[in-house]
Amino acid sequence: MSKFFSKRHSALVPYVPGEQPQATRKYIKLNTNESPFPPSPSAQENLAAAGRNLQLYSDPKCKRLTELFAEYNGVEPEEVLMTNGSDEILNFAFMAFCDEAHPAVFPDITYGFYPVFAQLNRIPYETIPLREDFSVNVEDYIGIGKNIFIANPNAPTGIALTVAEIERIVASNPDNIVVIDEAYVDFGAESCIPLIKKYKNLIVTQTFSKSRSLAGARLGAGIADRELINDMNTIKYSTNPYNVNAMTMAAGIGALTDDEYMKNNRDVIISSREYASDELKKLGFEMTDSSANFIFAKHPGIDGKELYLELKERGILVRHFDLPRICQYNRITVGLPEQMQALVETVREILEEKA
Amino acid sequence: MSKFFSKRHSALVPYVPGEQPQATRKYIKLNTNESPFPPSPSAQENLAAAGRNLQLYSDPKCKRLTELFAEYNGVEPEEVLMTNGSDEILNFAFMAFCDEAHPAVFPDITYGFYPVFAQLNRIPYETIPLREDFSVNVEDYIGIGKNIFIANPNAPTGIALTVAEIERIVASNPDNIVVIDEAYVDFGAESCIPLIKKYKNLIVTQTFSKSRSLAGARLGAGIADRELINDMNTIKYSTNPYNVNAMTMAAGIGALTDDEYMKNNRDVIISSREYASDELKKLGFEMTDSSANFIFAKHPGIDGKELYLELKERGILVRHFDLPRICQYNRITVGLPEQMQALVETVREILEEKA
Repeated sequence: MSKFFSKRHSALVPYVPGEQPQATRKYIKLNTNESPFPPSPSAQENLAAAGRNLQLYSDPKCKRLTELFAEYNGVEPEEVLMTNGSDEILNFAFMAFCDEAHPAVFPDITYGFYPVFAQLNRIPYETIPLREDFSVNVEDYIGIGKNIFIANPNAPTGIALTVAEIERIVASNPDNIVVIDEAYVDFGAESCIPLIKKYKNLIVTQTFSKSRSLAGARLGAGIADRELINDMNTIKYSTNPYNVNAMTMAAGIGALTDDEYMKNNRDVIISSREYASDELKKLGFEMTDSSANFIFAKHPGIDGKELYLELKERGILVRHFDLPRICQYNRITVGLPEQMQALVETVREILEEKA
Repeated sequence: MSKFFSKRHSALVPYVPGEQPQATRKYIKLNTNESPFPPSPSAQENLAAAGRNLQLYSDPKCKRLTELFAEYNGVEPEEVLMTNGSDEILNFAFMAFCDEAHPAVFPDITYGFYPVFAQLNRIPYETIPLREDFSVNVEDYIGIGKNIFIANPNAPTGIALTVAEIERIVASNPDNIVVIDEAYVDFGAESCIPLIKKYKNLIVTQTFSKSRSLAGARLGAGIADRELINDMNTIKYSTNPYNVNAMTMAAGIGALTDDEYMKNNRDVIISSREYASDELKKLGFEMTDSSANFIFAKHPGIDGKELYLELKERGILVRHFDLPRICQYNRITVGLPEQMQALVETVREILEEKA
């Protein structure tokens, strides 16, 4: 830390992204919840035209993509804000609506960026423990009077709330915003986007990184009542008016038009998840009931970190979190069926060698 | 503003980007300092490969591009931080180094985003008037004991300081950071990147938006002592670890490898600027001595806003700022020679009709 670094940030602990191995070794990469499928053909095709005109600034209103995304989700363009990944819309929500008088609250085990955004923006926050089985106890959030951030399905557990449960939380906190982070919603949970028509305090966030195979393009979105969208636009135009670049827009438009491609891939991932879950259970793993593109599992016969390191040694990357309640677990991204077969076989070897 | 919007931001006035006309009418677009040249061939070619792998997150370290950019500028990779446009590195500098005890200072007439970043981050700031001729009075900044932001060449004036003048400012404020925003440096000013080896309090920012024809790709950079870069990385990893997406990286790498292409285009723009400046002077315009890819000019016979509107009516967009000291001026981006010919002819018509 230089002597110039503001004391404001003396306690700031940045987010640590999952490992991105460079080309020296070829891993089966199941550690950052990426899609095993390339972007849709239209997403790729649209890039060439975007590339020819990069000398021009991108449309700060992101008009065409916003309209398409709104139509896809049955809302108005004024109820949508497209962002540079869903991290950006999450940060905008922290920036726009949280402060000393409006602290944030979220589960103790969830997306690791929430506390970072709170710290960065010097927003008081508290965490509410998940139940022993890692499920969210809805009662904990009823009428809590704080700004609520819940990932649904949650990460890294994959456990989803129902729309009815979320509606109870939203309805009981009319003076606070509720952010439902639907990064993984396409893999088995129900979106609460329709609720934004009924509640003025709900923000739903989504991403193109997972089911739409665009992690490297950085595209996310917020869907909310237009007044909340306006407020977040004030933050956007005070941060980075051209937050979604021309190539990302082109790729996003392509991905939305190839919706069947996404749905087919998603179906493969869901059956791949079921296959791997069954096989790992046969090997003695315990796991949460995941509605996401990852499995969150532990084995009574091997320490979580040890398994992570053994897998890495053998060319398979999964994500291990060195955190008290979950250090026995690993989060395993669901890849192609053959990748999951390789995972199961490798895990079997490791367990046999240990036995 | 919704009832949920934080009182923190009640005075926040967002930045207003230059008009981005949609396809309905074809303008000669001289209003946002874009390059009239498309991105380099390599920048475009690199996109296809990047597009095929967008399902993977981009390298958060931005390793290859950072190395290339460092080498190009004769510094170490640890002295470089690549960002999502140079707006992002500017915001990082405000966030990392400014606070109540370390206010910001910048000229009264300069890039309009500096006060927005200060307001957004609730940083006290003051502005120092440029001289009557719009030049920066270096003496005003000697030993000022505040964090200094200076665009060099300045915008919208185009006037540049020398490296020796900047060095005096940097050397006289050892307990504060000095940010030199070199967005337009390639068009006629001298970069002070070499000074970062000597001063631990200097941050130089650059962009690929202007001379490298990548405004729509959003790529900027900060060059500074590694301790300052570390601090800004702390902010980056607390905001958006994947701030430069995979396509932007690919385009940036292409642009850097096609350096001759940039230099040739820059030379055309400089001679186009000289041509247009001479012709406008013949028509009675007064203007600053621009080292940038724009001309900042006024005419005693026509109001600045009127000229802006007349030009727009006739299909030419320039940028007018409704601000006290400069409302008689227009900032005219330097385009291709034929675009500048059209500009000169149209201005001549307008003046003749008015006479």
